Amino acid sequence: MGLIVQKFGGSSVANAERVMNVARIVTDTYKQGNDVIVVVSAQGDTTDDLIAKANEINPNAHKREMDQLLTAGEQISISLLAMAIEKLGFPVISLLGWQAGFNTNSIYTQARIKNIKPNRLQAEIAKHNIVVVAGFQGINRYDDLTTLGRGGSDTSAVAIAAALKADRCQIFTDVEGVYTADPRKVDNAKKLKEITYDEMLELATLGAQVLNNRSVEMAKKYGVELEVLSSLNPKPGTIVKEAAKMEKMLIRGVTKDKDVALVSILNLQDTPGIAFKIFSRLSAKNINVDIILQSFGRDGTKDIVFTVNKENGPLAVELLEDMLDGCRIVCNTEVAKVSIVGAGMESHPGTASKMFEALYESNINIQMISTSEIKISVIIDAEDADRAVSAVHRKFIPED
Amino acid sequence: MGLIVQKFGGSSVANAERVMNVARIVTDTYKQGNDVIVVVSAQGDTTDDLIAKANEINPNAHKREMDQLLTAGEQISISLLAMAIEKLGFPVISLLGWQAGFNTNSIYTQARIKNIKPNRLQAEIAKHNIVVVAGFQGINRYDDLTTLGRGGSDTSAVAIAAALKADRCQIFTDVEGVYTADPRKVDNAKKLKEITYDEMLELATLGAQVLNNRSVEMAKKYGVELEVLSSLNPKPGTIVKEAAKMEKMLIRGVTKDKDVALVSILNLQDTPGIAFKIFSRLSAKNINVDIILQSFGRDGTKDIVFTVNKENGPLAVELLEDMLDGCRIVCNTEVAKVSIVGAGMESHPGTASKMFEALYESNINIQMISTSEIKISVIIDAEDADRAVSAVHRKFIPED
Repeated sequence: MGLIVQKFGGSSVANAERVMNVARIVTDTYKQGNDVIVVVSAQGDTTDDLIAKANEINPNAHKREMDQLLTAGEQISISLLAMAIEKLGFPVISLLGWQAGFNTNSIYTQARIKNIKPNRLQAEIAKHNIVVVAGFQGINRYDDLTTLGRGGSDTSAVAIAAALKADRCQIFTDVEGVYTADPRKVDNAKKLKEITYDEMLELATLGAQVLNNRSVEMAKKYGVELEVLSSLNPKPGTIVKEAAKMEKMLIRGVTKDKDVALVSILNLQDTPGIAFKIFSRLSAKNINVDIILQSFGRDGTKDIVFTVNKENGPLAVELLEDMLDGCRIVCNTEVAKVSIVGAGMESHPGTASKMFEALYESNINIQMISTSEIKISVIIDAEDADRAVSAVHRKFIPED
Repeated sequence: MGLIVQKFGGSSVANAERVMNVARIVTDTYKQGNDVIVVVSAQGDTTDDLIAKANEINPNAHKREMDQLLTAGEQISISLLAMAIEKLGFPVISLLGWQAGFNTNSIYTQARIKNIKPNRLQAEIAKHNIVVVAGFQGINRYDDLTTLGRGGSDTSAVAIAAALKADRCQIFTDVEGVYTADPRKVDNAKKLKEITYDEMLELATLGAQVLNNRSVEMAKKYGVELEVLSSLNPKPGTIVKEAAKMEKMLIRGVTKDKDVALVSILNLQDTPGIAFKIFSRLSAKNINVDIILQSFGRDGTKDIVFTVNKENGPLAVELLEDMLDGCRIVCNTEVAKVSIVGAGMESHPGTASKMFEALYESNINIQMISTSEIKISVIIDAEDADRAVSAVHRKFIPED
């Protein structure tokens, strides 16, 4: 008995049948004596269809108009879901982002939530209404509509849970929770009962694609307990919460990220400040650099190798060729990053060597290594990635 | 040079090409030195598609949710049109009904405009923006979205023109203006240069389907000069304005309405108040009665014949059979109403006989007659309707 926030993505409400399915999950939760606020995204391909319509007319349209356009998507899905819940005989009301009190800054298509004015949400809950809220959207100080960018509906749900001190925020997806590895690829992948915010953040960054990072950060900041679970098979999923009193596991999962390009600068003349110049130039062009490796060659030259997102590889090479003379610059997009994540590894110094051992046994060559308190990543050939994940997973996660 | 309000219906913005066409009309008007506010409906079939989606889930959904759903339609069309205008290089902003200040009552799906708070519209005009406003929609005192019902976008346009004292309100449609008869049916039908509000109201009621009645009434009340013209061929259309200083014509047009059922009550016992009882019963069921004819039979009985909308015919018969004993009740749906409309006929007593002469010459039998100061209607067999329109038109409108 409490206040539950539930979030459903676009595929969960893609057609009438799925909308009815979501309505049943929501009303089951309500029937158990809970107050329920439901956050939904636009139906299925609606957002992509609207973007296509816009591009046909003006591919460079002002972002304010893009947000005015895109927010229509959730407007459709919230009213349809409210109709479905009404059909099942429960009191319900739908609210657009601005009606639910979402105030944002004015960075159209990438807005940040400034605050939630909770009056209307509280009033509807007090009337025992199930409240269906449009995710992904808000309003700025000029009374113009804004959107929160990729994964915005997750963020909306967590923001409501934080503002109203909800007992839990359930994120319904098409998987049953967070796994130790991709269950479609690794036979023995196991669903985690629980995971810390930090572990989840590393997993999200590393390509697990279950929860949006901003939403996990916000959940951590406000102590919102998250649950990741399936809308098609709604049994207990994975709880994301503070580390305290959590079951200890050496690692939580093994991930693979193929969206990596490895840029090498070879035979670079080692002048003072050269590394700073290189990376500030890349940063100025919004190219995020992940792992950096530097090694010294002969004759006062050195090699600098770093990774960026695959799409930024060619641009990075171009920028560097403009600014550097006399050195070779090579971009390799046939690489992948394989990582293990787990808060437990802090106190287990042998974790890294155990991972390297697994790769060595499978004859997989490591090109770069990067470590943090709760993760270890290696860059390897892309073609070895799936084998590497299986080998590392086998090493750390016991067989059933 | 002034403030022009332009309204475009759903078919005028049905696809990218047509949206660009509207953008060109709007920016041409702006280039001539005018401030321009554009009111648009939802694209093509959008509203029908949204209604179908709702019906699939819950055909009896709360009207509030229906309005929440349907207002997404204009939200899409205004942002797309704004993008098209921006593409042509002009300053533009789109506003939803509530952003444009449309305050309505709370009768969902049939809301009436209470007032327009013009601050935002005025501010955008002051910035020399072309303003694209979502027609058909507003907001009530609870901050919930409402829609204005059928023809609502025309009403939105006229309301803005009235609130901002615009110099003209142009209603773009798929015809080039108001004609003396349906130009697809009557060879010699002529486009009218001008017409009074009252004449336009009679023509609209009688099935001319060019302008929505509520919008004409509002235009009359606030003295907004309307122009009906084509979005595909934007040359001068028909001006709707006050009668003063208008070219005198005997009649403005001939119309046909097939949405008529003729209900006859035969051999009714003539007890006091019986007609009142009959028509108050019909009125209680929201059945609008148009023309009524009463004739006295033998033996203290009388016959009452009246017309209703075709869809209400069977219900009217059922209601009457419940309340009346011993009389025959017949419903004939194979009838049509043919009317002539013109402010000039007030001062020409021969107008009615000229119309009857035309019908007589064509061997068309008149079943009922109804007259007002500016119109004469006859009920005839449906199969004679087109012939009747042509004959009457020939009689009144000179051949070229």
